[in-house]
Amino acid sequence: MSDVYVIGVGMTRFGKHPDRSATDLGAEAALAAIRDAGIEPRQIEGAYCGHVFQGMAMGQRVLAHIGIAGIPLTNVENVCSSGAVSIREAALAIRAGEHDVVLALGVEHLTSKFQGALAPDPDDVEAAVGLTMPGIYAMRARRYFEDYGVGRGELALIPVKNKGNAALNPFAQFQEPVTVEQVLEARPIAEPLGKLDCSPVTDGGAAAILVSASAAKRLNGKAVRLAASSLRTGTVDAEPTPMTFEPLTNATARDAYERAGIGPEDVSLAEVHDCFSIAEALRVEGCELFPRGEYLQAVERGEAAIGGRLPVNPSGGLLGKGHPLGATGVAQVVEIVRQLRGEAGGRQVEGAKVGHAHSRGGKAAGVEGAACTVQVLVR
Amino acid sequence: MSDVYVIGVGMTRFGKHPDRSATDLGAEAALAAIRDAGIEPRQIEGAYCGHVFQGMAMGQRVLAHIGIAGIPLTNVENVCSSGAVSIREAALAIRAGEHDVVLALGVEHLTSKFQGALAPDPDDVEAAVGLTMPGIYAMRARRYFEDYGVGRGELALIPVKNKGNAALNPFAQFQEPVTVEQVLEARPIAEPLGKLDCSPVTDGGAAAILVSASAAKRLNGKAVRLAASSLRTGTVDAEPTPMTFEPLTNATARDAYERAGIGPEDVSLAEVHDCFSIAEALRVEGCELFPRGEYLQAVERGEAAIGGRLPVNPSGGLLGKGHPLGATGVAQVVEIVRQLRGEAGGRQVEGAKVGHAHSRGGKAAGVEGAACTVQVLVR
Repeated sequence: MSDVYVIGVGMTRFGKHPDRSATDLGAEAALAAIRDAGIEPRQIEGAYCGHVFQGMAMGQRVLAHIGIAGIPLTNVENVCSSGAVSIREAALAIRAGEHDVVLALGVEHLTSKFQGALAPDPDDVEAAVGLTMPGIYAMRARRYFEDYGVGRGELALIPVKNKGNAALNPFAQFQEPVTVEQVLEARPIAEPLGKLDCSPVTDGGAAAILVSASAAKRLNGKAVRLAASSLRTGTVDAEPTPMTFEPLTNATARDAYERAGIGPEDVSLAEVHDCFSIAEALRVEGCELFPRGEYLQAVERGEAAIGGRLPVNPSGGLLGKGHPLGATGVAQVVEIVRQLRGEAGGRQVEGAKVGHAHSRGGKAAGVEGAACTVQVLVR
Repeated sequence: MSDVYVIGVGMTRFGKHPDRSATDLGAEAALAAIRDAGIEPRQIEGAYCGHVFQGMAMGQRVLAHIGIAGIPLTNVENVCSSGAVSIREAALAIRAGEHDVVLALGVEHLTSKFQGALAPDPDDVEAAVGLTMPGIYAMRARRYFEDYGVGRGELALIPVKNKGNAALNPFAQFQEPVTVEQVLEARPIAEPLGKLDCSPVTDGGAAAILVSASAAKRLNGKAVRLAASSLRTGTVDAEPTPMTFEPLTNATARDAYERAGIGPEDVSLAEVHDCFSIAEALRVEGCELFPRGEYLQAVERGEAAIGGRLPVNPSGGLLGKGHPLGATGVAQVVEIVRQLRGEAGGRQVEGAKVGHAHSRGGKAAGVEGAACTVQVLVR
């Protein structure tokens, strides 16, 4: 997939925006990406919009708001990978020769939707017995502690790292670092996970302008190559998913590495789906970026910090930057593009050449609804 | 787009299915299409699922139900064009060289969602002043009558034709023909439109198997070529949309004709988005299949009947077959494929060579949310 480039990115500040609409947030992000690409809105030939809870025709509302009319647009949804999938489908449209300049947008106004959206589904047997998202990840954390001889203290280092990174990111929801003590003393959600181990409820928008090789040349922008955009869904094994390893994440990452012609050792920085603190460990290990069972010690040694061997979630991740579902996967690409261009300010990863974005959606325990993406971007 | 073929189609009976789930309906349709294509589920390499109101991860639930795991799937939504868009995105994935065999699925369990879904949106100013869908189409009917010197009696011929065709389609919601008198005496909804001028609330699923040219050859199926799959969204003019003509429909159809290398005069049969009786006139005229303002007289002369010059909605259309939003656009392709293969039984259009499917979603009067697709299939 050597023929797709990102030439512009933009996002809103993530956070609680009670006075703004999803349309408004999406428009701000789209216009920021268009401006960053140095193009005019009328040069956009096609668009994709990822979201989960925003109802019908979300992307159409954004296009109307910013005065783009008459082009093809498709709304896409893959649970928490919805934004990442807008990137993937935009890339496919370019590879198909359908468009040269495509807007990939992700948006979510979660604070206005969250109550209703999470009302118990009477058919959801897992939720009825307590297997909510925090419950599932708490079980996975306990299993991980048991299997690998680590504990609550080491796990707390992940929120500390990510909220610390977020404090360096003006677009992040949280702007203050936290200490291990604050993580350990936070309100329990599903033990061992406390409030600071869980990604917050967030509103926001993020956008990227994807182009063909010929358009990248013609438009003369600061192009970053999208070397792979892989998607897998459901399980990849007939066996139940192990609690501490994700075959779906692994299969998706391997597919992305093969497409990009790289190995995990080539990655300069990774944005991964840390919906809970323990999830970051499961994802970096699933992507083979760190050895299985050794991630918490690696974090303790500073390997995943900005300036470490392989910075993970320098943007702050979902824990620090926030998690507006549909916008999350696009915002990962925004961060990576800024890092690869050397425009990440106080959180810049020096010499960054290869960026890796992992996004995961759907039920963690069940077969149904799982979706995973891995994207590789190269300077 | 000469390199995409449809080798299998399937659908559930459309109607009210209170005892079945969207997952169940989607699975039935997908398995029927897989069987029709003469392939095994494991040969599916990627999938798209169109729906509007079914919540998160609809397509993933269907794949899990039929035992397909680990492949890429993306859920897509473009209001009433959602199903049609699953066909378009599947075709793009094939043209991009990403997949050779793709499932395009559409599903909706509307009877269980319709009440909540249509609860008034406090931000929807148009609905608040009575510009609901039936209200808008009623105004358009009156304008059409005024502009072209036709009336209620001629308009009634459209439901009569479509429900008559549906009576020949074992998969249609309505199985009984209706008379002009029944249409005129039906309960008024928004005058001049009565109940039989409005598409019903419907549950159902529809699916198609799309393949590359090489896979079509290898799999040796009954391949029908998808010669164009065009999508446009929003308005195409700065001017307000005229009440009796749809620039968006026209632009989309012209794009499709150009891609397919045909003109409207080459079309053997058309499935168009007759969400209301008057809508059929607006769509066939917008697609230049009949001269502007002359469609009702053409229907009166039998030109749009099965056996006429250009049969419109031989399946029964939305008025007769039913309108399960996400499934509707795929079901149009199901009908066309069956017609082009000569497998349409009592409603067969003799010598059908070129089929045309038009789907339209979103607010009819406003700029926001409009989406339109036109697909051309060739034997």
